[in-house]
Amino acid sequence: MKWLKTTITIQTQGQGLYAFNQQVNAQIRDWGVTEGMAFLFVQHTSASLVINENYDPSARKDLENFLDHLAPEGQNWYEHTIEGRDDSPAHMRTMLTNISLSIPIDNSKLSLGTWQGIFLAEHRHRGQHRQVSLRVLGID
Amino acid sequence: MKWLKTTITIQTQGQGLYAFNQQVNAQIRDWGVTEGMAFLFVQHTSASLVINENYDPSARKDLENFLDHLAPEGQNWYEHTIEGRDDSPAHMRTMLTNISLSIPIDNSKLSLGTWQGIFLAEHRHRGQHRQVSLRVLGID
Amino acid sequence: MKWLKTTITIQTQGQGLYAFNQQVNAQIRDWGVTEGMAFLFVQHTSASLVINENYDPSARKDLENFLDHLAPEGQNWYEHTIEGRDDSPAHMRTMLTNISLSIPIDNSKLSLGTWQGIFLAEHRHRGQHRQVSLRVLGID
Repeated sequence: MKWLKTTITIQTQGQGLYAFNQQVNAQIRDWGVTEGMAFLFVQHTSASLVINENYDPSARKDLENFLDHLAPEGQNWYEHTIEGRDDSPAHMRTMLTNISLSIPIDNSKLSLGTWQGIFLAEHRHRGQHRQVSLRVLGID
Repeated sequence: MKWLKTTITIQTQGQGLYAFNQQVNAQIRDWGVTEGMAFLFVQHTSASLVINENYDPSARKDLENFLDHLAPEGQNWYEHTIEGRDDSPAHMRTMLTNISLSIPIDNSKLSLGTWQGIFLAEHRHRGQHRQVSLRVLGID
Repeated sequence: MKWLKTTITIQTQGQGLYAFNQQVNAQIRDWGVTEGMAFLFVQHTSASLVINENYDPSARKDLENFLDHLAPEGQNWYEHTIEGRDDSPAHMRTMLTNISLSIPIDNSKLSLGTWQGIFLAEHRHRGQHRQVSLRVLGID
């Protein structure tokens, strides 16, 4: 078994879901790992990970709007407001989605379903430089 | 250390939570793994994984109804409607629950709490043939 | 590679988020693991795991209140009420957060972001004796 690691950088342009499975698969191919487990981890508190439909853009848009409905900006009971109206809702949306994911690798790529994509979910209005750590346990 | 893998199939009959920890435990026993880590991953975008109370059916029913309240069908802002009224809510409920889980194995079985069960959450009305990939890192 | 395991105990005093990353890091140092993967798993159905902002207490308070708004007590459609008004909402809040987390280890500690903390989320009113299982795959 071997252990491989890197950090993937994703530049966001405001709130939304940004697919990055191709970046992960390119790295797995570069490493020559054919089988094993990939571990993704986000080191942020206002961005997170989502695996969901990656085919129809309207499905992605509904997911984005859904997070906005669940944790809207400007509720009168919010206390954490000094870092901006979007900051506390960003932490809430992070809590409802994922900080860590573990995904099987088969045939030298992530073993995703036909319609699945991996997204970095940006929860702040302003574009950010986001980092996702990738760890791979290769079975060879 | 050894690496074992299979796919577990679950036939659903419409929306709801379907317990399948016994299928996972039977596989772990068959493999002769006494200790290690189990990784579950769902390759779908309208079904997901939940670990929660598996004793009182009324607790499970409340969880099912809760998902219906959080992401109801037929909201006027939904754009992704061509695959049915239940499709976009199914993606939303998938986002709020789990695609991947990592569970310790001790004494040749999943190290769950007394009241915990592992459920496949079906989010579509129609029964489906769902697949969950199981990967095990056995420590011997 | 080596495999290490223990159980971390957290005494809660009612609903709220309890940071425990320092307990995990102390254990990793004691084991002498410099690099690898940590797996956390909660064996409860009314407590869960959250990774989120650990700097400003008002951010934590908003997250706690948010769970209360998403899954409030006393809804008229709840059926699972015999174990107390807070029991079914506790299962719901558990479902929306995490039972399992996988976190990279670098430089002999959890590789968290600057503002991230790991919290045990207690969802019952009464204080409880909670247990989190910690498994570590050490790469040396």
